[in-house]
Amino acid sequence: MSQDLTTLLNPNSIAIIGVSHEPQKVGHIVAKNIMDQGYKGELYFINPHLDRVLNKTVYKSIVDIDAPIDLVIHAVPSEIALNSLQEISQLGIKNVVIYAAGFRETGDDGKKREELLIAKAKEYDLCILGPNCLGFINTSRHINATFLKHSSPKGNISVVSQSGALGSVMIDHFIDHNHLGFSYFISLGNKTVVDESDCLEFLSQDSSTEVIGMYLEDVKDGSRFRETLAKVTKLKPVVILKSGRTQEGSKAALSHTGGLGGDAEVYETIFKQAGAVVANSYQQFIDILKVYSFGKIPTFRSVLVLSNAGGVGVLLTDELVHNHLSLVTITEHTKKELEKSLGSKGFKRITIHNPIDLLGDASVFDYRQAILSSIQQQDIGAVIVLLTPQANTQIMETARAIIEAQNHFIKPIYPVFMGEHSIKDAHRLFEEHHVVSFDSYEPLPSMINAIVESYEYRPKQPPSSHSPETLITLAHEQQIKDILELASSKKFLNLEESMNILHLAGIPLLPIHHVHHKEELDYVIKKLRFPVVAKVASDKITHKTDVKGVVTNIETVQDLKKAFNDLSKIANSEGCYIQKNVKGNELFIGVKRDNVFGPILVYGLGGIYVELLKEVTQFVYPFTLKEFTKKLETTKVINIIKGFRGAPAIKPQQLYEIGMTLGFLMHHFSDIQAIDINPLFSTDKGLFAADCRLILG
Amino acid sequence: MSQDLTTLLNPNSIAIIGVSHEPQKVGHIVAKNIMDQGYKGELYFINPHLDRVLNKTVYKSIVDIDAPIDLVIHAVPSEIALNSLQEISQLGIKNVVIYAAGFRETGDDGKKREELLIAKAKEYDLCILGPNCLGFINTSRHINATFLKHSSPKGNISVVSQSGALGSVMIDHFIDHNHLGFSYFISLGNKTVVDESDCLEFLSQDSSTEVIGMYLEDVKDGSRFRETLAKVTKLKPVVILKSGRTQEGSKAALSHTGGLGGDAEVYETIFKQAGAVVANSYQQFIDILKVYSFGKIPTFRSVLVLSNAGGVGVLLTDELVHNHLSLVTITEHTKKELEKSLGSKGFKRITIHNPIDLLGDASVFDYRQAILSSIQQQDIGAVIVLLTPQANTQIMETARAIIEAQNHFIKPIYPVFMGEHSIKDAHRLFEEHHVVSFDSYEPLPSMINAIVESYEYRPKQPPSSHSPETLITLAHEQQIKDILELASSKKFLNLEESMNILHLAGIPLLPIHHVHHKEELDYVIKKLRFPVVAKVASDKITHKTDVKGVVTNIETVQDLKKAFNDLSKIANSEGCYIQKNVKGNELFIGVKRDNVFGPILVYGLGGIYVELLKEVTQFVYPFTLKEFTKKLETTKVINIIKGFRGAPAIKPQQLYEIGMTLGFLMHHFSDIQAIDINPLFSTDKGLFAADCRLILG
Repeated sequence: MSQDLTTLLNPNSIAIIGVSHEPQKVGHIVAKNIMDQGYKGELYFINPHLDRVLNKTVYKSIVDIDAPIDLVIHAVPSEIALNSLQEISQLGIKNVVIYAAGFRETGDDGKKREELLIAKAKEYDLCILGPNCLGFINTSRHINATFLKHSSPKGNISVVSQSGALGSVMIDHFIDHNHLGFSYFISLGNKTVVDESDCLEFLSQDSSTEVIGMYLEDVKDGSRFRETLAKVTKLKPVVILKSGRTQEGSKAALSHTGGLGGDAEVYETIFKQAGAVVANSYQQFIDILKVYSFGKIPTFRSVLVLSNAGGVGVLLTDELVHNHLSLVTITEHTKKELEKSLGSKGFKRITIHNPIDLLGDASVFDYRQAILSSIQQQDIGAVIVLLTPQANTQIMETARAIIEAQNHFIKPIYPVFMGEHSIKDAHRLFEEHHVVSFDSYEPLPSMINAIVESYEYRPKQPPSSHSPETLITLAHEQQIKDILELASSKKFLNLEESMNILHLAGIPLLPIHHVHHKEELDYVIKKLRFPVVAKVASDKITHKTDVKGVVTNIETVQDLKKAFNDLSKIANSEGCYIQKNVKGNELFIGVKRDNVFGPILVYGLGGIYVELLKEVTQFVYPFTLKEFTKKLETTKVINIIKGFRGAPAIKPQQLYEIGMTLGFLMHHFSDIQAIDINPLFSTDKGLFAADCRLILG
Repeated sequence: MSQDLTTLLNPNSIAIIGVSHEPQKVGHIVAKNIMDQGYKGELYFINPHLDRVLNKTVYKSIVDIDAPIDLVIHAVPSEIALNSLQEISQLGIKNVVIYAAGFRETGDDGKKREELLIAKAKEYDLCILGPNCLGFINTSRHINATFLKHSSPKGNISVVSQSGALGSVMIDHFIDHNHLGFSYFISLGNKTVVDESDCLEFLSQDSSTEVIGMYLEDVKDGSRFRETLAKVTKLKPVVILKSGRTQEGSKAALSHTGGLGGDAEVYETIFKQAGAVVANSYQQFIDILKVYSFGKIPTFRSVLVLSNAGGVGVLLTDELVHNHLSLVTITEHTKKELEKSLGSKGFKRITIHNPIDLLGDASVFDYRQAILSSIQQQDIGAVIVLLTPQANTQIMETARAIIEAQNHFIKPIYPVFMGEHSIKDAHRLFEEHHVVSFDSYEPLPSMINAIVESYEYRPKQPPSSHSPETLITLAHEQQIKDILELASSKKFLNLEESMNILHLAGIPLLPIHHVHHKEELDYVIKKLRFPVVAKVASDKITHKTDVKGVVTNIETVQDLKKAFNDLSKIANSEGCYIQKNVKGNELFIGVKRDNVFGPILVYGLGGIYVELLKEVTQFVYPFTLKEFTKKLETTKVINIIKGFRGAPAIKPQQLYEIGMTLGFLMHHFSDIQAIDINPLFSTDKGLFAADCRLILG
């Protein structure tokens, strides 16, 4: 159920239950934080055992306060917080923050406590942030309702985090920098009521927020989150840092806040498909937030590099290419401009290509001329200006020249001033002028890639533009239902049943014929032409190749009979399937059900290589043709699509539609747990499913 | 030719030709640098147009100096430097540094100038550093013979660099840090005489150098470098940063100092096989040098993580796993120790697993107890202590506890104190006590991986322990020579000739029979048993599959005759080859010739998948079985070796020996330019080459 956070995050009055005069206690720190930050609303302290704290009256109980309260902050242990909810609700209070740990994250007892909390929240219609959280910060309203050490400078970055500590680290960073700060910081904790989607909704409408950052370990409601995220990224950039990318990481995350982490690639796919920027580390998360906070954004992949150090230019180039960025080719026109503007140096000493090596003695004049003559070129996505502090390097002058150039250009200029001692002041100056600078080149290429990628993925139309529903007629729907119902006691359908469903769903396939007795072979042969394939028929054999259950390239009746005999002798054999033998490259398509996000399509190379290579790529249903083709470009499957070893090219659209149809089948029929098509033959007549397995669950 | 650098880098007297009184000129800066650093030897200034510079007499010419000169520094343009070499030699001077650019790196004229320089150096027996370099620093002797802006603090790090600017960046970093500095910094420039191998030899014997860093764009003498590096890494750690990893990077490097960059993976393989630490970025290069400079080294992969921020612990865990590091499993004994030492907190709130989450309120007591009770565990390679500045975090106290623990333990403890404002002083303290610390977790896992990897690769015996020479008898050697000589006018050998050479070299193969006329089929069939494979025979067809030139699974005489007919009709066909049809997984082995390092072995999945997947792994000949098996573990080939889909496991040794034999063939017969075996069948009877192509050059 979605929550409106307006009053919780912008309360006109706050009551803190559990204030303390011990400086190390949460009940003291939060009271002090709210006062120190200069909150203008009403503030009430509650503790039955105290009279005054921080020179303010302390009430014995919340019922003693004879005034409306917008928000209650619980700085008390879990049991006390739980027991007070009814009373709070009876006073007409809607919003509660609970800091206490001791819920889902601590085992079975905690889990029960959390279930009780959720039930009470529902019963009393409470909007609860937490528990097991650090509270929130709203700098516009001067509210620091956390027990963090420092308060955050006011800024245009809002962060929603499943880790409170991350907030402390960010604030510690902001304090030492210019123009960086939170608009809101929201610590989610266990997300019993308020979740990431609620926060996204709220922040997307908040005028003080220019960019939204999220640190997530899991997502509460997959489909709502996906929908909300896709909507919000159209309004504001959303940068996501997700932990639990590896199995070990997921295990650690699980014990951390007790979330049920989904598959890492599925999350990344969801984020990208919805147009978010995916950060691969904390440092990159901060860098990207800074880029959006300062406002000049790289939106395409071509980069121009200027440098006074050839070697570092090469290291940077390696890193750019590694991150799928390209070096702009310098046009003849720009070349001439550069030569003209650099004077004798341009003519005699510099070979003008990208990266442009201005040599160790590069002056501010050289840098300025090079920037001004090259940045005009149409196809530049970003400019990187590398500087190493050499004997005659004019560090501050060059910094000023870059700031001036950046003021006049919409494309971002990123100074990489390397070293430490000599370049500190320059970095301070850059920040004062809202220029994002770096003291080494490493973080930059991967950061630009992450940002540009989000623009490339951001869908122009919603993914439902191609409606796979039209592929399945109502009549067929009933037939599919019948097959599934008949098989409902089984764990999976046999090959015939599985292929039948594919056929009814409109997926092209190579027909199969089940032969139980040798006598039926003659009949089958009349319908098929040689060569044919024979496969063992059995409900009990999963990998037919492993038991030598597949005979290919059968050319004669004699050979076919021999194959039938051989296959019938395999344990658990129920005769065999006969199918036309086609030539083509083998692909794999499967669909599986994710607990959080629903149907996930998996594409890869087919045949036995699925398991040998374990190289697949995933898509969360539904997805657009554009997303599909873009992501496929980065996989080996693209080689087969483009035509490989004599086989003709195939249209990605065909492959896309089969995937969408499988996704729809799973979306529509909740009994289906997984479908594997392997191989899907890519032939000169198109794509054909040759084998299939449908798992029920 | 190897150079002894002792006098060049430790001169008792230096003459600078081209001193200047203009503060921005190289001839002024270097003079000032040497004086400022406090050089104790004799220093002479030379400039025909000046009388005094920096309060010192200036000689008109070098011949006017009536004293022995150990080193001449040329701060003059290229032509003047070139013309003075004869005079210098006549004075009995051996060592010269040339700063001037304008050689190989600037095109054809420069290339000629460089050839002239090399010829003169040889004629006059001069040891020249440069040209196009920045000179060198020797802090023990107080020599800063560079034109860098700052002088370096004295330290135990020596760096040899093909980029002078990198030295300026490192010094700029050292100045602001404690206990970091150069012992030597040597700027290589164009490496006309002194090269990286000379520097390695020298530094390996230098007692002030604890660790050697190298920034390389290429290597001058591949086999000498390889040999020297393998020798030196047994004495001292060598950390290498190589640029030109990508094609674009190589292009940029090429124009930078004009080096002929070899293939990036070949370099990396060489470095690793020789026991060097390979840094993947400048920042990592610095971090690794710092680790060796401070002295506590991680040598195995298991890591223990302590943290006061669960979320960041998860992010770190992801990164550790991503870098092939593992989280130590905490033993029952350690668990009990921890529970005991942490008191009530240990019992009630912390689930003890790795990462150990000490929770947001972790005190110095908690940190100290956790470190002391866990670090005793046997199998820990390194400990990472994560700290985020939360309300009650005892930052400096915890820093001191870590330093104390590190003083008593040989295993490295890496503090990751995150943030900026609150943790600066702690990082300063760590550095003062030689503890390598980080302000975010990102760089650490990849750094540990790079260091540990070098210990895993470092060979216990030299790679020649298994001598492939024994595989080829002398009689066979003559036969191989004969085949190659007969074919010397051709670009490649045909299948028969190629397979013949494999056979003579002792590589197991599936015999082939060349059938020119249909009449010969009967004879062949008597020797082989069905099923067989028929392949088109032709000197002109490279990819037989592409022209439908391979028929597999032939079971009858009738089918074989049909196949022969079909294959004979293909353009350029010269009949066909008949071979036994075997079942097995297909591998690929090839060998190619690298200009710098000689024979390179390439292993991959075979059949048509070589080109579809383009996934191969390389080894530089010769290599040890240990290196081979270790590197193979990271590839898909390992799946086939371990036995895949019914096929039995094969011994890596067989695969290794075939590769070493191919390497020996290429090493021994200079006419061979490349050999491809594809497929190499992995069957239950072992490995068999089924097809082969040998390229001459």
